Amino acid sequence: MDEATRAAFRVEGDWPMLRRHRIRWAECDLYAHVNHTAYLTLFEDLRVAFWEGLGGRFGQDAIGPVVGTLEVRYLRPAGFGDEVLLTCRTASVRRSSFVHEYAMWRADGLACSARGIIVVTAGPVKAAIPEAMRDAMIAQGARSE
Amino acid sequence: MDEATRAAFRVEGDWPMLRRHRIRWAECDLYAHVNHTAYLTLFEDLRVAFWEGLGGRFGQDAIGPVVGTLEVRYLRPAGFGDEVLLTCRTASVRRSSFVHEYAMWRADGLACSARGIIVVTAGPVKAAIPEAMRDAMIAQGARSE
Amino acid sequence: MDEATRAAFRVEGDWPMLRRHRIRWAECDLYAHVNHTAYLTLFEDLRVAFWEGLGGRFGQDAIGPVVGTLEVRYLRPAGFGDEVLLTCRTASVRRSSFVHEYAMWRADGLACSARGIIVVTAGPVKAAIPEAMRDAMIAQGARSE
Amino acid sequence: MDEATRAAFRVEGDWPMLRRHRIRWAECDLYAHVNHTAYLTLFEDLRVAFWEGLGGRFGQDAIGPVVGTLEVRYLRPAGFGDEVLLTCRTASVRRSSFVHEYAMWRADGLACSARGIIVVTAGPVKAAIPEAMRDAMIAQGARSE
Repeated sequence: MDEATRAAFRVEGDWPMLRRHRIRWAECDLYAHVNHTAYLTLFEDLRVAFWEGLGGRFGQDAIGPVVGTLEVRYLRPAGFGDEVLLTCRTASVRRSSFVHEYAMWRADGLACSARGIIVVTAGPVKAAIPEAMRDAMIAQGARSE
Repeated sequence: MDEATRAAFRVEGDWPMLRRHRIRWAECDLYAHVNHTAYLTLFEDLRVAFWEGLGGRFGQDAIGPVVGTLEVRYLRPAGFGDEVLLTCRTASVRRSSFVHEYAMWRADGLACSARGIIVVTAGPVKAAIPEAMRDAMIAQGARSE
Repeated sequence: MDEATRAAFRVEGDWPMLRRHRIRWAECDLYAHVNHTAYLTLFEDLRVAFWEGLGGRFGQDAIGPVVGTLEVRYLRPAGFGDEVLLTCRTASVRRSSFVHEYAMWRADGLACSARGIIVVTAGPVKAAIPEAMRDAMIAQGARSE
Repeated sequence: MDEATRAAFRVEGDWPMLRRHRIRWAECDLYAHVNHTAYLTLFEDLRVAFWEGLGGRFGQDAIGPVVGTLEVRYLRPAGFGDEVLLTCRTASVRRSSFVHEYAMWRADGLACSARGIIVVTAGPVKAAIPEAMRDAMIAQGARSE
């Protein structure tokens, strides 16, 4: 993340993955605010890109990430047309799960943060995260547990 | 909740509010499971009905409930066509916020649970919960804090 | 459809399939109106129930209905909390497709209507509609073509 | 539109407005295809950008575009992860409405097209399209009617 971006959104901490976004009409509700679930769909986009970035795929025949738990804090409501920054990082990794952190930043700072345990599964059962993926997560800053 | 319903969905604990639901096509993703955000939209329906049941309204000129935090546990994935039971209760209430708990139950028990701090606001600022609403929450089992 | 329902929503024409619905928070946009796509998701629910009512299933291994074309007329915007009636009928049926008509009715009459060619497919290719399904559609009023 | 883009998506006709998109997880259903409503939400994004590009705004106090009718043709299903091109153009313009055409293109050509009458309203009533906006639509190729 370059310093201009960091300053523009008052980003705190290290985030290896980021994406700009403009709040869509379909993401907003009667209050002209982003619906509380739309933040999570945007974070899902990051998770998908993260997984593909590690060489992962999606499909009935592939191991894939599934949300096990999620803790979300809604701090400042983003509104229609807002230019925001979305960030993602892996806090830690275990044999078949990892902890992901997400944030949405506005010009005045953190709008929403989330932290979740992401379980890697093959259909209905847990699957071991391949060595190369684990290594890549750790190289990006994840703590091995 | 009658005993037949409690047994049919292996419900645990007391839930003053419940609603049956059949999982919709639009709620499911490639894995044929309910998308992780669709659970939250179903819980939102309960929150809306809860608020209206207490005499609350929604609109630019009314105080209304806004999600401040949310902790979600995804335990068993519900799938397309599943008949589920949705439940809601108020754990506690403060001056301008309350803690809501939600659950989705399948025939084999708890599928997803969530707990969130719901803040009552008038536009961008916190608003006091009217006395009659507070009393109603407490009458339904909420702890006053 | 009983006469009370017909009168309550000023319904015109014959509709073998109907369902009541209350407009959800998540279905509305900044204008406090139902988003133009949410009508179509509600109609999709009817199509799914229609297909299942004829003995059809959904899944990778089953033939299923896919939307080929859709013509939608938005006449009166439904709003948050509105009690509406959704209706569906089959106008005509061919070897591997049928024409479906949908409508949403408010207390003051037709809010939205849609008409679409629904193609029955097995994966990427067209499939013949089973005889029993065709017969059932015709018995409900569909014209054979 | 440059010739490389036109060739990459086998685009036919003139489209003054275009946007690349990658199909999101949340846009897909059990068939791993884009849900039929998700195309329309993507076209809505173009309509919003189009309106803002003409100097328009959105809000309770502004005139804005509302979908009056929509005709959609689903030709080839786009799937998860597909790189697509979205295009938009104004076919014609009247006093208080215009006809918009939308398309989604894949590497093998047209996936979905739509054509709709978009009505400009001020709250519940029709509003005249400002002269400058009309002129801009005509300059982009719209026929005055």
